[in-house]
Amino acid sequence: MKHASALLLSLLFSSPLAAQDTTALMGFTKAHAAEELQREKQFDQTLKAENLRQWMQRMAAEPHHVGSAYDKDNAEWMAKQFKSWGYDTKIETYQVLFPSPKVRVLEMVEPTKFTASLAEPALAEDATSGQTDAQLPTYNAYSTDGDVTAELVFVNYGVPDDYEKLEEAGIDVKGKIVIAKYYGSWRGIKPKLAAEKGAIGCLIYSDPQDDGYFQGDVYPKGAFKSEYGVQRGSVMDMPLYPGDPLTPGYAATKKAKRLDRSQAETLTKIPVLPISYHDAQPLLEALQGPVAPEKWRGALPFTYHIGPGPVKVHLKLEFNWDQKEIYNVIATMKGSEFPDQWVLRGNHHDAWVNGAADPVSGMVALMEEARAVSELAKTGWKPKRTIVYCGWDAEETGLIGSTEWVEDHAAELQQKAVAYINTDGNSRGFLFMGGSHTLEAFCAQIAGDVQDPQKKVSVLQRRKAFDIVNGGGREKYKGFTISALGSGSDYTPFLQHLGIASLNLGYGGEGSGGEYHSIYDSYDHYRRFKDPEFAYGIALAETAGRATLRLANADLLPFEFDHFYKTMAEYLKEVMETADKMRKEADGLQANLKEHLYELAADPNEPLYQPKAPQPVPYLNFAPLQNALTTLETNAKQLEALLKTDLLPAQKRTQLNALLYHAERQLVREEGLPRRPWFRHQIYAPGFYTGYGVKTLPGVREAIEQGDWQEAQEQIDFLARVFTEYNAYLEKMLTAGK
Amino acid sequence: MKHASALLLSLLFSSPLAAQDTTALMGFTKAHAAEELQREKQFDQTLKAENLRQWMQRMAAEPHHVGSAYDKDNAEWMAKQFKSWGYDTKIETYQVLFPSPKVRVLEMVEPTKFTASLAEPALAEDATSGQTDAQLPTYNAYSTDGDVTAELVFVNYGVPDDYEKLEEAGIDVKGKIVIAKYYGSWRGIKPKLAAEKGAIGCLIYSDPQDDGYFQGDVYPKGAFKSEYGVQRGSVMDMPLYPGDPLTPGYAATKKAKRLDRSQAETLTKIPVLPISYHDAQPLLEALQGPVAPEKWRGALPFTYHIGPGPVKVHLKLEFNWDQKEIYNVIATMKGSEFPDQWVLRGNHHDAWVNGAADPVSGMVALMEEARAVSELAKTGWKPKRTIVYCGWDAEETGLIGSTEWVEDHAAELQQKAVAYINTDGNSRGFLFMGGSHTLEAFCAQIAGDVQDPQKKVSVLQRRKAFDIVNGGGREKYKGFTISALGSGSDYTPFLQHLGIASLNLGYGGEGSGGEYHSIYDSYDHYRRFKDPEFAYGIALAETAGRATLRLANADLLPFEFDHFYKTMAEYLKEVMETADKMRKEADGLQANLKEHLYELAADPNEPLYQPKAPQPVPYLNFAPLQNALTTLETNAKQLEALLKTDLLPAQKRTQLNALLYHAERQLVREEGLPRRPWFRHQIYAPGFYTGYGVKTLPGVREAIEQGDWQEAQEQIDFLARVFTEYNAYLEKMLTAGK
Repeated sequence: MKHASALLLSLLFSSPLAAQDTTALMGFTKAHAAEELQREKQFDQTLKAENLRQWMQRMAAEPHHVGSAYDKDNAEWMAKQFKSWGYDTKIETYQVLFPSPKVRVLEMVEPTKFTASLAEPALAEDATSGQTDAQLPTYNAYSTDGDVTAELVFVNYGVPDDYEKLEEAGIDVKGKIVIAKYYGSWRGIKPKLAAEKGAIGCLIYSDPQDDGYFQGDVYPKGAFKSEYGVQRGSVMDMPLYPGDPLTPGYAATKKAKRLDRSQAETLTKIPVLPISYHDAQPLLEALQGPVAPEKWRGALPFTYHIGPGPVKVHLKLEFNWDQKEIYNVIATMKGSEFPDQWVLRGNHHDAWVNGAADPVSGMVALMEEARAVSELAKTGWKPKRTIVYCGWDAEETGLIGSTEWVEDHAAELQQKAVAYINTDGNSRGFLFMGGSHTLEAFCAQIAGDVQDPQKKVSVLQRRKAFDIVNGGGREKYKGFTISALGSGSDYTPFLQHLGIASLNLGYGGEGSGGEYHSIYDSYDHYRRFKDPEFAYGIALAETAGRATLRLANADLLPFEFDHFYKTMAEYLKEVMETADKMRKEADGLQANLKEHLYELAADPNEPLYQPKAPQPVPYLNFAPLQNALTTLETNAKQLEALLKTDLLPAQKRTQLNALLYHAERQLVREEGLPRRPWFRHQIYAPGFYTGYGVKTLPGVREAIEQGDWQEAQEQIDFLARVFTEYNAYLEKMLTAGK
Repeated sequence: MKHASALLLSLLFSSPLAAQDTTALMGFTKAHAAEELQREKQFDQTLKAENLRQWMQRMAAEPHHVGSAYDKDNAEWMAKQFKSWGYDTKIETYQVLFPSPKVRVLEMVEPTKFTASLAEPALAEDATSGQTDAQLPTYNAYSTDGDVTAELVFVNYGVPDDYEKLEEAGIDVKGKIVIAKYYGSWRGIKPKLAAEKGAIGCLIYSDPQDDGYFQGDVYPKGAFKSEYGVQRGSVMDMPLYPGDPLTPGYAATKKAKRLDRSQAETLTKIPVLPISYHDAQPLLEALQGPVAPEKWRGALPFTYHIGPGPVKVHLKLEFNWDQKEIYNVIATMKGSEFPDQWVLRGNHHDAWVNGAADPVSGMVALMEEARAVSELAKTGWKPKRTIVYCGWDAEETGLIGSTEWVEDHAAELQQKAVAYINTDGNSRGFLFMGGSHTLEAFCAQIAGDVQDPQKKVSVLQRRKAFDIVNGGGREKYKGFTISALGSGSDYTPFLQHLGIASLNLGYGGEGSGGEYHSIYDSYDHYRRFKDPEFAYGIALAETAGRATLRLANADLLPFEFDHFYKTMAEYLKEVMETADKMRKEADGLQANLKEHLYELAADPNEPLYQPKAPQPVPYLNFAPLQNALTTLETNAKQLEALLKTDLLPAQKRTQLNALLYHAERQLVREEGLPRRPWFRHQIYAPGFYTGYGVKTLPGVREAIEQGDWQEAQEQIDFLARVFTEYNAYLEKMLTAGK
């Protein structure tokens, strides 16, 4: 879509954005805006879907997990491509811990015998599914070794609420092996929490309700998970720190001093194995004990019971605890005006198996974007700032490639990184973006400028339709928003360790399926069910390409503080409401207990789910935070008035740019979050007990959620100081701009 | 529980009732209250669980549906019992249309062949399940004959919302056979609506999600429906009129003039057959076409598709359209002071098969209640008012026994009936009551006086615990409430045809199962899973017995108008909010359509669910109703002040009693509800498209829900006149009381 018509649409539909000065391209003078839009038009015309198709076919042709020959081969091939397009390209390597399975045994030993197949069969309809020798078996990486036999307990998703429910009913998992459904949290939380509760082993299976025939026709008839499909995946304790478990906080170079494996805190404490619903069914069907609560039940054709027993299982796991070399591909195009201001753009290239969707679909879009940028560069134009394209290795295993690289180059990145733009697997449908809210307005403008390939309106319009039709209706629609980032892809070290403003984006919502981390995430599957013509791969290149180009070329970096303020005010409201809600719930629960209502409401033939007596919830002093945000509101408004590209002389802009891109840096603190110093960002973090799921204002929010009222108050005061210092920084910018 | 301790509890827990004058027994002078409570104590002590057990064993020993030998045998045996207890007992008979299956064929003819078994197998664990020759086959009574072959379409529950969804997606059921899940509405709505939409046949199956292994272990291991269980049931269009289809509005006596069957409006228009999930599975699994919306999917282990086809089925049904004799048992104990004021108390005795739970569990509790009342009568006491115990036949087939009897005795009942108290099947757990809201306060007091057999607190306390723990928490709890009555049991002709204040009650919420209307509703099933010791049968006798005794003995009938006013105000608020909500939704939908949001949000590979353009929703003039209710509030308050039993002289009480029990009569109108004059009550009715589900203020509410704005305004004005006349009646009472 042309810029003009995007504008027209945005006016027609009178979205909140129309109220903004959308006639201006954020960060550009009027004259430069015209050039930039012209360049983007040229950029779009250069993009070729056929490249994406060919490159995906090549990269997904063989399994290419960490340590495999094809992982290295892909990296070298990618580097060759980047070089051929004129990028200054290197492969940076690290040596990291990477366990692979040696022994995997899962048997039911009581009340009947059953041996789990632990195998995904090859399919005639899927050309690469039979590459058995090169495939990693189904397993969870960074599970500890173990050989355990015990009664089985079904724990639903294995998240904190589920254990609370079990405790209410007096069911203890101590000394047991738990079986949890996938979903409901990031997988690594399941063995972590199970171990904390005293379990000695953990199975994770894909229930067909969440991931299988309940969702849609199964592969190969349809896209969804068949009875044998298994989701591999890392269970390293990433919410503690990602990256190589043996080199926390520093790069896993050849010479780096490494922890002994026994000291590595991010390995699981108990053995854990993912299984298919084919393998889970006999175990679950034979469980006895109370019938599982209604919300716990899945779509297998029997009554779900909790146990424990009479099912007893034997789980034996042994791994090769090897050190493997990993290969990050780093391709640089030097900036013409500000070579020491870097716009970083990355996607990982390693996969669990063939990984056509995850990550190749995103990686090939990034490469095509880089190729098109290089074509622009052949016309004489050069980006003002340096552009760095990154192809990460070992993301799947724990964001290892990006984390080690960021730790390796931390000092330089702190100085030079303007922003990091991440993608990962891509599909079909709607644009979803997450990231730093100082870039929300910038993202909305880009979304208005990219055309949806299926519906020929802007991707912003399509997303608006999605939000209204599938969300809460017209009244709740507040314009294009970006979500806060938790974890689960390579932005984490940039954003949460160093405080580099980051974005993560992709298309999805259509072309769903059950291939994730299985041997069926293949070129054949992708072409049938995801983005057959790579139209959304092109849309991704157009979207991320615009973000990269505009950040690299901007006269004034397009950071903006009003969306940031409003989002922070929203988060503060949420945590205050959480505390109030907890107080009210605790009071109600206390009163119910006093009146024995749980006992009176319970069927004596069923387990009594009786909550524990809650601790009273004190009132917290949120005033320091409220006051800091009031000042933030004022500063944001004043900055809005100041940061008019056309009104600022070039020298002021240069001065302000340096301040602007370091603003995010002011939100990290050396001491990090409680009990996990690696995570330094005070606004965005993955949840300690959610994994990928974000916790905003994490120090405050998690202390409240955990009911640690002393820490909650400390964190409120601490965060208020962070905002106060942030305000001082913004005021410095205001002064500099005058 | 003793009255004193119930009082103590109610004060301790400070329920809203404690605010009332609970030291007084509603309707009794202080002196008479003491006698009444003493009598109730004696009554309780007379009740014997062993009687219930023996009688259930006898009555459920053989199938006893309408027209069976054992149906008559049970009636005669019951009559003998009542007689032996001193009741003036007779069996009143009617001759009614009762179809039974001659031919039942269901086959899949494409894409593969499959013949449905249509049979429930005998079980070693269930002694009566093998009485195959005496059992009615699985069928829906009052289905028309038919022989149809057509493509199959899955229509979820087959309710209006489901057809709206199908229409949105452009799927037409015209000329097709539909398959609907049981639940989501009363079963008769499914073929009614299917026929209205042009379908030529209808299958109804029990999905294991609603009624099977998803709920709990299946019979005989557990209580729930096994793969072969089938729910029989009537599909006569009862929301139009219940009772014999050939004698609408008048009694089906031997000599009555009957409609020709072709004129009977309550027979279905298309053939309909209920099937098990065993028989449904091959049909549903072979369906193609769009994947069913998520909420439509059940718990069978495959992907649910909508069709139409490629499945084609052949459905052939022929019935014996016989006239059968039915047997109502009527047992009377004459009142000593007011023999022409009747307190009626009923339960049906016919079953689909053995019917241990439905209806025998309720019937034997009624009989034990009657026996205990007769024991009281042996001590010299006699009820002030006449008590009439009723054992209805042919309830299962369409409330036929009670309806014909009510139509037969309409004039006398209009004059003499003080109230009708209904029970049906009984289980274990919590007291649920529905009925006329002028009796709500009366019911709450009774609930406070009956002890829960499991928890040894009042059943009111237990119900409070249920409401708070399983409902919306403490804040939403408004005290003990009774629900409005729709239909589905024998109160309908009393309440909705004649305007006799009615109650319906039972214990439930525990002891659930899947035996309903199947051969497995047996003595064996009941004793294992429902109320093994008949403790709740006794509680039911205590509860209904108190209602009967207090109404029969009251000095001043315990009708009360404040709860009635508040409930009416609540209903008015609901219908006004419904209209507002519809207006808002129509506006939002219109705007969404104008912006093409449904198209933009849709996956082009999936069906587009695009709502039709809504008609605009006008503002209605609710003022006449609001004004009438304002007056009602005033009158209710004044009546509250007036109706103090101890302060009124006996003669005034007698005068007021006659007015009090006729108050409900003022809420019926000869012209009835639009398009269904048999239903005359203007406050409570079964929904035209919900069946059993109640619609309060039905004329107004249904017109609004159907978007018939002219009728809505007419009905508002009409209902306002009803309330105005009701107010005049209350004012007459106020004058009389002065």
